[in-house]
Amino acid sequence: MQYDLERSVALLRRMPAVLDALLRDLPDEWTRANEGDTTWSAYDIVGHLIHGERTNWMARAKMILEHGETKTFERFDRLAQERESRGQPLPQLLDEFARVRFANLDELARLALQPDDLRRRGRHPVFGAVTLEQFLATWVAHDLTHLHQISRVLAYQYRDAVGPWSVYLGVLQCAGHSRP
Amino acid sequence: MQYDLERSVALLRRMPAVLDALLRDLPDEWTRANEGDTTWSAYDIVGHLIHGERTNWMARAKMILEHGETKTFERFDRLAQERESRGQPLPQLLDEFARVRFANLDELARLALQPDDLRRRGRHPVFGAVTLEQFLATWVAHDLTHLHQISRVLAYQYRDAVGPWSVYLGVLQCAGHSRP
Repeated sequence: MQYDLERSVALLRRMPAVLDALLRDLPDEWTRANEGDTTWSAYDIVGHLIHGERTNWMARAKMILEHGETKTFERFDRLAQERESRGQPLPQLLDEFARVRFANLDELARLALQPDDLRRRGRHPVFGAVTLEQFLATWVAHDLTHLHQISRVLAYQYRDAVGPWSVYLGVLQCAGHSRP
Repeated sequence: MQYDLERSVALLRRMPAVLDALLRDLPDEWTRANEGDTTWSAYDIVGHLIHGERTNWMARAKMILEHGETKTFERFDRLAQERESRGQPLPQLLDEFARVRFANLDELARLALQPDDLRRRGRHPVFGAVTLEQFLATWVAHDLTHLHQISRVLAYQYRDAVGPWSVYLGVLQCAGHSRP
């Protein structure tokens, strides 16, 4: 499917309600549990999404529009949520995610992006030249990668409880796939 | 984490609202698209979840309680949704899923299951003896495997649009894992 701004926003706009329906007031045994070691819990992932809204998505989109390939993106701090979210209850994080997401979508709408804008290029520290369209498509896929991860982290808590059925449950065969 | 009936129901009860928030009125380009060939779209998956509520979960749970290991489960028809959902708009399927899910959870509550009940055994055609607890844990993990799958199917539609970022997006590395 080709990238489409309106269809992308349709998904981005839904994500706060999706996370809310899944996680608000869910027992801590689900939301604070991870997949072992330094992996993330659902709580950590919501913190990560907030950090992305605050520092990454609209900031880089505007950087592409203003500076093109003359400025290289700064690296995104994938561990910032540990500092920023510490001690905040999950319902508060969900409220904050909705607030910053909708503020960003309002700002995106005000840019009134045209097809020519979507072809504009920025510079990624590893990939080199990237387009605004690729970057905005990544915003959507990034939401989905973390919804995929939350589903997996929750299911992981029942990996033993399901007994022999684990072989039929794809989510329990998923080893995570994001490159560190 | 040990299986816990109340915590399980907390997740099962949320799933209609999660799917509603994610899929209702989302453009068909998202909800009707699959991962190629005979793979499932989000629409197909909602149909599959409805079929499970109608024929699988509570029916087998009651069979374990009534017949123990003397009766073997019938095989679950994993393609039934193609016949049953055909032609129904997605919002109608989402309404139906909520209806059958809540009816099943009401019935589950009326059973007032005790720890001894959860240890009762039924007979699975492939696995042999299984416990009611394993089966009820699988109900939860089955929801999560399909939420995981929906996230992946949606993300798949932007596998090209994201350009070089695909290597950072775990959901795009996920090959699905359910055994056929």
